Amino acid sequence: MRPSGRQIDQLRDITIERSFTKHAEGSVLVSFGDTKVICTASVESGVPRFMKGEGKGWVTAEYGMLPRATGSRNNREAARGKQTGRTVEIGRLIGRSLRAALNMELLGENTITLDCDVIQADGGTRTAAITGAYVALADAITGMLEKGTLKKNPIKHPIAAVSVGIWNDTPVLDLDYAEDSTAETDLNVIMTGTGGFVEIQGTAEGEPFAPDQLTAMLALAEKGVRELCDIQQQALAQ
Amino acid sequence: MRPSGRQIDQLRDITIERSFTKHAEGSVLVSFGDTKVICTASVESGVPRFMKGEGKGWVTAEYGMLPRATGSRNNREAARGKQTGRTVEIGRLIGRSLRAALNMELLGENTITLDCDVIQADGGTRTAAITGAYVALADAITGMLEKGTLKKNPIKHPIAAVSVGIWNDTPVLDLDYAEDSTAETDLNVIMTGTGGFVEIQGTAEGEPFAPDQLTAMLALAEKGVRELCDIQQQALAQ
Amino acid sequence: MRPSGRQIDQLRDITIERSFTKHAEGSVLVSFGDTKVICTASVESGVPRFMKGEGKGWVTAEYGMLPRATGSRNNREAARGKQTGRTVEIGRLIGRSLRAALNMELLGENTITLDCDVIQADGGTRTAAITGAYVALADAITGMLEKGTLKKNPIKHPIAAVSVGIWNDTPVLDLDYAEDSTAETDLNVIMTGTGGFVEIQGTAEGEPFAPDQLTAMLALAEKGVRELCDIQQQALAQ
Amino acid sequence: MRPSGRQIDQLRDITIERSFTKHAEGSVLVSFGDTKVICTASVESGVPRFMKGEGKGWVTAEYGMLPRATGSRNNREAARGKQTGRTVEIGRLIGRSLRAALNMELLGENTITLDCDVIQADGGTRTAAITGAYVALADAITGMLEKGTLKKNPIKHPIAAVSVGIWNDTPVLDLDYAEDSTAETDLNVIMTGTGGFVEIQGTAEGEPFAPDQLTAMLALAEKGVRELCDIQQQALAQ
Amino acid sequence: MRPSGRQIDQLRDITIERSFTKHAEGSVLVSFGDTKVICTASVESGVPRFMKGEGKGWVTAEYGMLPRATGSRNNREAARGKQTGRTVEIGRLIGRSLRAALNMELLGENTITLDCDVIQADGGTRTAAITGAYVALADAITGMLEKGTLKKNPIKHPIAAVSVGIWNDTPVLDLDYAEDSTAETDLNVIMTGTGGFVEIQGTAEGEPFAPDQLTAMLALAEKGVRELCDIQQQALAQ
Amino acid sequence: MRPSGRQIDQLRDITIERSFTKHAEGSVLVSFGDTKVICTASVESGVPRFMKGEGKGWVTAEYGMLPRATGSRNNREAARGKQTGRTVEIGRLIGRSLRAALNMELLGENTITLDCDVIQADGGTRTAAITGAYVALADAITGMLEKGTLKKNPIKHPIAAVSVGIWNDTPVLDLDYAEDSTAETDLNVIMTGTGGFVEIQGTAEGEPFAPDQLTAMLALAEKGVRELCDIQQQALAQ
Repeated sequence: MRPSGRQIDQLRDITIERSFTKHAEGSVLVSFGDTKVICTASVESGVPRFMKGEGKGWVTAEYGMLPRATGSRNNREAARGKQTGRTVEIGRLIGRSLRAALNMELLGENTITLDCDVIQADGGTRTAAITGAYVALADAITGMLEKGTLKKNPIKHPIAAVSVGIWNDTPVLDLDYAEDSTAETDLNVIMTGTGGFVEIQGTAEGEPFAPDQLTAMLALAEKGVRELCDIQQQALAQ
Repeated sequence: MRPSGRQIDQLRDITIERSFTKHAEGSVLVSFGDTKVICTASVESGVPRFMKGEGKGWVTAEYGMLPRATGSRNNREAARGKQTGRTVEIGRLIGRSLRAALNMELLGENTITLDCDVIQADGGTRTAAITGAYVALADAITGMLEKGTLKKNPIKHPIAAVSVGIWNDTPVLDLDYAEDSTAETDLNVIMTGTGGFVEIQGTAEGEPFAPDQLTAMLALAEKGVRELCDIQQQALAQ
Repeated sequence: MRPSGRQIDQLRDITIERSFTKHAEGSVLVSFGDTKVICTASVESGVPRFMKGEGKGWVTAEYGMLPRATGSRNNREAARGKQTGRTVEIGRLIGRSLRAALNMELLGENTITLDCDVIQADGGTRTAAITGAYVALADAITGMLEKGTLKKNPIKHPIAAVSVGIWNDTPVLDLDYAEDSTAETDLNVIMTGTGGFVEIQGTAEGEPFAPDQLTAMLALAEKGVRELCDIQQQALAQ
Repeated sequence: MRPSGRQIDQLRDITIERSFTKHAEGSVLVSFGDTKVICTASVESGVPRFMKGEGKGWVTAEYGMLPRATGSRNNREAARGKQTGRTVEIGRLIGRSLRAALNMELLGENTITLDCDVIQADGGTRTAAITGAYVALADAITGMLEKGTLKKNPIKHPIAAVSVGIWNDTPVLDLDYAEDSTAETDLNVIMTGTGGFVEIQGTAEGEPFAPDQLTAMLALAEKGVRELCDIQQQALAQ
Repeated sequence: MRPSGRQIDQLRDITIERSFTKHAEGSVLVSFGDTKVICTASVESGVPRFMKGEGKGWVTAEYGMLPRATGSRNNREAARGKQTGRTVEIGRLIGRSLRAALNMELLGENTITLDCDVIQADGGTRTAAITGAYVALADAITGMLEKGTLKKNPIKHPIAAVSVGIWNDTPVLDLDYAEDSTAETDLNVIMTGTGGFVEIQGTAEGEPFAPDQLTAMLALAEKGVRELCDIQQQALAQ
Repeated sequence: MRPSGRQIDQLRDITIERSFTKHAEGSVLVSFGDTKVICTASVESGVPRFMKGEGKGWVTAEYGMLPRATGSRNNREAARGKQTGRTVEIGRLIGRSLRAALNMELLGENTITLDCDVIQADGGTRTAAITGAYVALADAITGMLEKGTLKKNPIKHPIAAVSVGIWNDTPVLDLDYAEDSTAETDLNVIMTGTGGFVEIQGTAEGEPFAPDQLTAMLALAEKGVRELCDIQQQALAQ
């Protein structure tokens, strides 16, 4: 039995609250159970120097965690003067994943920055962040269309993410902290709503995993992402 | 008339939500109107090296702002590798202010770290942070007393803070961003619930202010802090 | 009795030596008793990017302390690669205070940088720095008027600063280190020569201070600043 | 046709030169075609503080690239004072991958640091680094066994890595720079010599990739890793 | 007897391998015995901002050492976020020395960056770096002449460097690590092929050195540099 | 004629003011003409970790320059968060030079830190700093002997430094800024009062210098150092 009493293919309770803060062009509080992340999308006209004049847009992301989002307090990265390798790595992953959602030509020379800040962590913060950031991004795009900044919708397909893993010798969906900290294998899967893979990142924490375990995990992930995309659509429809 | 339609001696709507996140020993979401700050109190056994062996405790604080807490996006300090002077200054102010609430001998060799992270800014973030941090601190102390880590309650008096200013030639209480950005003078007042001053910081943004303007502002601040202390007590009583 | 034998409303011996070094447009060695600060004013044409095209000038300040200005050696901030919070805070205070002396439109698009470097510390370094920096600033302005860089004098009023505090239950003027390190309350007051407040910063180090103590301290500060402005005028008249 | 004229399932010329430099306990120059990486293994007694007293060893890794390893010069990270996100991410990947090779209990409280420095880059530097670092690690372990620092060999299985991708709509093995810079999908696969997955990292640079493309890429990767493990064994046998 | 069995005026085995890596405009592996340094020359059009519009070129250099180039592992400077004083100092020395080889007017507004990275250290890394960097520079210049970027050869004279010292009371040429670590005096001499001094840096590690010892060391250095210039010419002639 | 009207072998006016500030164990204001440097010596019990238990002392130095010590303002290194290469290099030179003055066994496990801060620069700041730092060091040693911290005087010989150069084709002594900025060669010579060389650093800024020019410069340097040692002795005798 899973510590939370969930089925092996069952997501945690997922909620997506839009317009969570008032200033950002898109602002979402996403919860994967007790994991809670504020995702904002900020629109700026112009692109970074290395892209100027190409007529294409840019999407970038940064990730952070409040010092006491976790069981014991972590040092504040701004005070240390340095982001950890993990922070940098997750920010880069979120950016790459969300760039896959858009046609950059249609975005024009605009930059959208996604800030994902974890206020409470209970496993799966990066997958919650990507899933929430897509909704913030979609809200920002809607605003740009309404204002006439954009003529055509640059969104190609929704993006969502979920973790799967081998826990207690069994493939399970959407690991929480209790599972994640003892899992043998952890696989983060980012997919489009149309079933294509955008990114997969799997790590054997203990023993290497076998090809058939990989197949089983990928099947769980596909089911999870399909459900997450439905929840995203319901949130955006409200 | 004030932009918000408030009376000159009227606070914004103040709310204090306790147990906002689950890991910290004290966790509060404080709102001064549209200014919203997450304040957590983290308890650690031991004190910084320079205080070891004195039998006294320590309280310290750090302040931060999510990049899109404001109307336009600010650079993430962790990514820049440096906190701004303003951030450092406010963190130090919060720490000094809250240390004034406690008898450090009764705290024993324990450290309480207050993290105040602004998720939405509309003026007065430092005074909201101090007012909320006191409640998080009080919750952390209660927990330490319940666990037996502390024998006696080290709290000497509550602490709250409010800004006052000269806006449109008139002394006003609890400035929001619309007022703050055009105020001639801005004065932050941190007081005990028993009417003593802990810290006052006043700056003439435009013309210098006269002694009688200072007197009028201090009177407003005393009224505001008294009301804030009542709201803190109601929150703690729930 | 005060450790120095001074009256409670008596300043230390104040000296202001102009043209202390030869390269800067204004260069002053200011002494408040054993506290000695080199204040230079450097004039540069142009303003920071965020102000360009507004036709207004800018004044900024930086503060530093030689490693052995104090009783035991402090780490050199340049070698540590980081200024302390205290250093940053004082630099910002000096800049804000001196900006209050000038009409920025009359300064035109020029920047004046005030560098205040403590070579010997005995309490009150920030108030000595502000008082000396005003004289360096005035010398730089005179030079700009003589060269024709400025058409009209942008100085609105002199600025001086002094600390007051509650020491041994008594309000006293211009605390030296022996008093400062044991004072219950420390209040820095920056005023114009015309009696207006530019900035007040008061901190209860031990017990909170009462409104009547604040009133008494402010009266001492007004007396002190008036005397400091006289000394500034005498120095500038030589 | 591939730019290099290789078959779609053909590795580049792989060479592994042991004892490349004289000071390190293991020192290897690995070449995957024109990609050349110096991998050294340094043995130190003791483990990082967070692991002390557990009786287990530690393996960590750092990655770097000489400024002119690439077609145009990159800034030197040491001079910039900061590693790029990419550098940090690859260093972490190498460390995780090689830790999977060892039984940490048998390593005892010793730390092995793997430094992988790219002296010439032509695509696939991280997979070359991992493949070469395993040989350096194996040499360091042999030395520890010969000296008696270790009683039993802690190596569980060899580790090697290869990139696969979708290039020109075709799954191909071991991408060089000409392919990598235009590939639609890039998948790095780290496996044991016994056919288990240690880490997989796949990214769709352009269009998302389909499940059957993933299957085809994984099959190529298994073939490539098997061949790389043979080459490692031959190098170690000399 | 010298630890290596060399005569007191005998260089170590010197080799210079050109075109060591493929991307740089000049790329050399230089060996002074067991000291091995990769020197690359990178050509970029344009000069640093402070030199723009003067019609002159610029040569700059950076120095680095792989973490395990030495007997025990050094921290990676990029990971520490800071170069040591020694690293900065040597990079500046290499740049100054090589600038002396060129007529900057004839170089035009181009910048050549010399990167000298030590892959194995056994004493004399800075002198090996300068000697090798000259050959990389000469190759880069030849390429610029062939491409027509330059009309006339800006090289005024070759540059080479060698260390001399007082070891065991005797002046010796080209100290290796065994000698360098116990030498009383260490003198690095950078000269032109035409016998002029470009830079001399001598340090008494133990006792001060006398004028006649200086004379003896300088004579050895002249002999050594003459031989090094011959070896450079042979390498360039191949 | 030299710009200052001095003879080619004539030092500038040299003054050494002891007890310039009150806290340091040695505190000197040294002037070489218009070059003015505050040199303090700070004594701390204990040595850096890498020297513990060897029974020997340590001397280290740091160098700095006030932002407006020069004709135009330099960025404050503490604010930039980084010392320039030049600053680091000079600090290391001062430390090495002064270590040559002492018998480290007789110093015992004590550390003396020399801080040399230039308040006005007119060429030759490093040689003025070394010459002044020796006097501060001597005062600190005297204090340690008087307190009984030291049993025997560890000073082996005085140390002084001077620059010489080829200016206008002529060897000259003690270059000021007007000469230094146009000199063809610049040689800094650090010697003992007994005529031994501690460090020589010569750089050809324009043309290489010939052996006979080196001989002529060294002769001037010896004369200059002899006179500087006399001035040090007179200052210490007061």
